[in-house]
Amino acid sequence: VSREVDELEQDAAAGNGLLDRRTLLKGAGALVALSAGGARAGERPAWSSRPGKPMSGYGAPSAFEAGVTRGGISAQPGAAGSGASRTPLEQLEGTITPSGLHFERHHSGVPAIDPDQHRLVVHGLVDRPLRFDLEALHRYPMVSRSYFLECSGNSGALIAPEPRQASCGELHGLVSASEWTGVPLRLLLEEAGLEKPARWVVAEGADAARMSRSVPLEKALDDALVALYQNGERLRPENGYPMRLFLPGWEGNMSVKWLHRLQVTNAPAMSRDETSKYSDLEADGSARLFTFPMAVKSVITSPSGGQRLGARGVYQISGLAWSGTGSIREVEVSADGGRSWAPASIDGPALPQHLTRFRTAWRWQGQPAVLLSRAVDSSGNRQPTRSAVLAGRGAGSFYHYNGIQAWGVDESGAVRNVYA
Amino acid sequence: VSREVDELEQDAAAGNGLLDRRTLLKGAGALVALSAGGARAGERPAWSSRPGKPMSGYGAPSAFEAGVTRGGISAQPGAAGSGASRTPLEQLEGTITPSGLHFERHHSGVPAIDPDQHRLVVHGLVDRPLRFDLEALHRYPMVSRSYFLECSGNSGALIAPEPRQASCGELHGLVSASEWTGVPLRLLLEEAGLEKPARWVVAEGADAARMSRSVPLEKALDDALVALYQNGERLRPENGYPMRLFLPGWEGNMSVKWLHRLQVTNAPAMSRDETSKYSDLEADGSARLFTFPMAVKSVITSPSGGQRLGARGVYQISGLAWSGTGSIREVEVSADGGRSWAPASIDGPALPQHLTRFRTAWRWQGQPAVLLSRAVDSSGNRQPTRSAVLAGRGAGSFYHYNGIQAWGVDESGAVRNVYA
Repeated sequence: VSREVDELEQDAAAGNGLLDRRTLLKGAGALVALSAGGARAGERPAWSSRPGKPMSGYGAPSAFEAGVTRGGISAQPGAAGSGASRTPLEQLEGTITPSGLHFERHHSGVPAIDPDQHRLVVHGLVDRPLRFDLEALHRYPMVSRSYFLECSGNSGALIAPEPRQASCGELHGLVSASEWTGVPLRLLLEEAGLEKPARWVVAEGADAARMSRSVPLEKALDDALVALYQNGERLRPENGYPMRLFLPGWEGNMSVKWLHRLQVTNAPAMSRDETSKYSDLEADGSARLFTFPMAVKSVITSPSGGQRLGARGVYQISGLAWSGTGSIREVEVSADGGRSWAPASIDGPALPQHLTRFRTAWRWQGQPAVLLSRAVDSSGNRQPTRSAVLAGRGAGSFYHYNGIQAWGVDESGAVRNVYA
Repeated sequence: VSREVDELEQDAAAGNGLLDRRTLLKGAGALVALSAGGARAGERPAWSSRPGKPMSGYGAPSAFEAGVTRGGISAQPGAAGSGASRTPLEQLEGTITPSGLHFERHHSGVPAIDPDQHRLVVHGLVDRPLRFDLEALHRYPMVSRSYFLECSGNSGALIAPEPRQASCGELHGLVSASEWTGVPLRLLLEEAGLEKPARWVVAEGADAARMSRSVPLEKALDDALVALYQNGERLRPENGYPMRLFLPGWEGNMSVKWLHRLQVTNAPAMSRDETSKYSDLEADGSARLFTFPMAVKSVITSPSGGQRLGARGVYQISGLAWSGTGSIREVEVSADGGRSWAPASIDGPALPQHLTRFRTAWRWQGQPAVLLSRAVDSSGNRQPTRSAVLAGRGAGSFYHYNGIQAWGVDESGAVRNVYA
């Protein structure tokens, strides 16, 4: 009853082994057929012989998963607490990032804020300045939405002239996704009453860096949240406990953590954090201010850099796609460096401004391959090639990089970052 | 510009203070208006004065949230590792349960399984018995879906003749939800090839209790998963690491954890775990075998048992609804013990067999109240009253309880479990 591997030829969807996304893969996995006896026999391992651990108040991953941590931790010399850690995308599946593995980017470390003492102040061009404690915010209607968050510096290593050898998470792991629950910022601004010249909201964090960014009023009145919960529980300290701004689809730095102040203004503050960083250089060397939404992007998370394929046969290609300008409409995959493309399966509802999981089947028979993915979003935006991204940029410009990622597979099954 | 509280009268949606779900709550929260000076002044707290903690490999909740743990831990005397812990529903928001707070129910504790040694065997009425290791399973197409999981003993305390005073989580916290990623069981069964008399699949865990349950083949071939990931990362040990069966919408006990064996049979095994427990007694004392899907249900998580309202004003009523027989179509809320009802807002997409968050606004002016919620699912099933559930049951029957929960609020703002 099981299909032979050779029958899979009829399911070819593109060159170099890509199979139709509806291929069931019967007979294609790495399986061991057992004798009737083998199915029942076998020694009883220790964990089946005596009772295991008791119930606990707050669980943790298995000790066998101790190697699954945030990686690529980079600290900025001379600036205590300034740096980043990255989500190990290649070790995860689905679309939600476990809160313990959400990427970090801090400008002065993670403050330990007492929630009972923390206040959020709304002032500036408002009819009446207001101050909210956590209990007050809990009186307001909340919304819960799953959204990605991406640092605008994510994938910046891809501008290097030679491809850096690193894992998918080390290269692209400044993106994560959570279910965020909070109060629409619009409600708080309407409560304060906007004065006529109001055009911007300057958000400031309570960390020692007083990280601050200017947000156009239009976004603040649209889908911005004052987020209080992440994946069901209160925000993690690294993500702004006890409250953060959250701007769906926009560069992560604007979703100011440890939020304690919102000043309504008629112009952007041109704060240190929005002028010294996060600006893109045009090809002519001039700076583009500002780049708010993160552009459409995708990356194959498995197989990916540093991994090694095992036995020949059919593999599941799995990856993530996202866009700050809509939902993911389509992802295509190539196994021959872009000569031919096949549509990948989009798993589940492709929610706007959220990570979308795509998958497809690929038959590897020991041949070299170059795996690519490219995404299109609901606004019709298409993920560009690396060279197209670089052609529009000045030297050294690395923010907002969304080029197509290529993973090279050699005859030994080793997977490397390549430029294709 | 802000609306006065009295204006809210026009937004009444049902008796005793329930407001229209579209009410914006302007002017209704507990707010502090500041003088212009007050908005900028204030001492700088310690956490704003010096750099915070550095990046970390795997994050944890704030120390200020140390009290948010699984509660109602119950151990069965004489049976090491047998017992349960419960999700603190009243302290959470949104629809995803953090994996560390997912409820537990074990029959012999949590085994510490080495994933490299673990195998899943498929045998019985199949053309060829098969054995899978984790690498083999990763060759198959996976799907990611957010689903609730509920123990069939959840809420069983509500059959007590007098209402037990406990928190929402202690009473109803044997339900949680995660994004589960795994291989459709159908693919593995088709790979093994089903023999003609095949009707059931008996699933067994690798824990010392060898927990086992019989699953009708129809479910196994429908939406059943061999789940490998939970909320993005590998399953937590308490949830079956390295693999579990997952049967969307069905009683939790059937989603066998630490899955190591699937035997295809022509009849249920009538195992200890499906005969000594999880059976409902009919009113005439006869036992009903089996009750697989969990029935439509809802509960207000805030305000809820043991909480105390603070200042008078407008509160957000927030709760969860779910059904094993579809998605949530409607939730209604009452503040007067069921004399009048108002529709609650359903937040976001109401996904099938997943927790759905509902919310509505309620104006509390110090009056006594009895808060109720009742859900209807997409199959047209309606959540029954407590007395309707009990009327159909024999004495002491407590599994699969889905009656309407009533929270009484007294003049002091104290919230108690009441029968209404």
